[in-house]
Amino acid sequence: MACLEDRLKACEEKIADLMGKEKTMVAFSTLAEYGGARGPFDGDTTLVYNTLIANVGDAYSASTGVFTAPVAGVYCFILSYHAGGDHNAKLMLIKNSELIVATSDHKSNEPSDNGGNAAVLELKKGDQVYVRMAAGTRVWADGRHTSFSGFLVNQK
Amino acid sequence: MACLEDRLKACEEKIADLMGKEKTMVAFSTLAEYGGARGPFDGDTTLVYNTLIANVGDAYSASTGVFTAPVAGVYCFILSYHAGGDHNAKLMLIKNSELIVATSDHKSNEPSDNGGNAAVLELKKGDQVYVRMAAGTRVWADGRHTSFSGFLVNQK
Amino acid sequence: MACLEDRLKACEEKIADLMGKEKTMVAFSTLAEYGGARGPFDGDTTLVYNTLIANVGDAYSASTGVFTAPVAGVYCFILSYHAGGDHNAKLMLIKNSELIVATSDHKSNEPSDNGGNAAVLELKKGDQVYVRMAAGTRVWADGRHTSFSGFLVNQK
Repeated sequence: MACLEDRLKACEEKIADLMGKEKTMVAFSTLAEYGGARGPFDGDTTLVYNTLIANVGDAYSASTGVFTAPVAGVYCFILSYHAGGDHNAKLMLIKNSELIVATSDHKSNEPSDNGGNAAVLELKKGDQVYVRMAAGTRVWADGRHTSFSGFLVNQK
Repeated sequence: MACLEDRLKACEEKIADLMGKEKTMVAFSTLAEYGGARGPFDGDTTLVYNTLIANVGDAYSASTGVFTAPVAGVYCFILSYHAGGDHNAKLMLIKNSELIVATSDHKSNEPSDNGGNAAVLELKKGDQVYVRMAAGTRVWADGRHTSFSGFLVNQK
Repeated sequence: MACLEDRLKACEEKIADLMGKEKTMVAFSTLAEYGGARGPFDGDTTLVYNTLIANVGDAYSASTGVFTAPVAGVYCFILSYHAGGDHNAKLMLIKNSELIVATSDHKSNEPSDNGGNAAVLELKKGDQVYVRMAAGTRVWADGRHTSFSGFLVNQK
């Protein structure tokens, strides 16, 4: 009997672990909406995507622009921007203080430009991910064009 | 005995639930392939991505261009387009009738333009997601350039 | 007794299967970093993204540029590029030898261009996915601009 009960208890514990992971959802999607161009600023500046589309797990802060990983795992991040052509545009996806990927466009006679990038990252609990706008650059922050999204692919 | 059997039955039910969720796969990837430019049209028009790359779960209709969520959950959508520079281009990701994200480019002397956007959405079962092309705009619908993809990140 | 034990054994096997799938993580994120432009080459050439951001499951080779699916399943791939405007740019996402999606830009007076695309693919174990750069085209391979990422959405 002890044998069966021990095995059953092990099953129950593993099921609880699986159900916990199954229930852990982390996903956000945000827009920078400032009624027109955002920037240029004198120095590199965190782009605060201030308009939430989704924030499952509340790991993204629409007041600071920073996503903080609530659990260790593999995450995917995607950013897209629209910009007027009369200024440089440059956005950088940052993990803690490390540059992960960048997307940019040079000033031109072209009336507008689009750009974006994506990355998959292994994060520890508490790691912070956010987007910096390079000094002297700007993006179009209106009409739901400039977005930043991320989600947990696998919990560790 | 009843005690052990009750616990075992609870385990079996939880496992069935986990296995059901594990088996629920929803993912599609599609292209607009019309042998050249698509549009411009007089009014906003759903862009029917008519060429399937994948349609796991059959939730996307290649005849209407509409994705219908088969289960409640968190989904990710990504769209990319190529367009000739001689017209405006504008695509809008719509949930039911709500604008989620847009991507656009102005008419220019540039021979071509690229754009795209992505969003993570919480959907109820039956919610519909699709892409609208704004009146008077067009995209390049050839050579597997203009795509729309989505997948279930987490079932609720 | 036999009955309970058989049911318990079935539970244990299903849990092991679920835990195995839960532990199978496949996700990579890579950059093409060659200190400047990459290409043009005389023929179509695999773009070897030589700088790893993540390679969970070691399924991407930074020496060949090829991702090989370690398990059957649904995968998502995203590519983004930056390119100087003075040459054509064209990248093609390939599954085995089949073109899945492309992204390109024409030579122009524009100083730079961005592009990208994404696809969800059903892969068998051993299927290979990689990016080809079309003959006579080039991309900017510096400053963490040109990336290729992928991850397992669902194991089959």
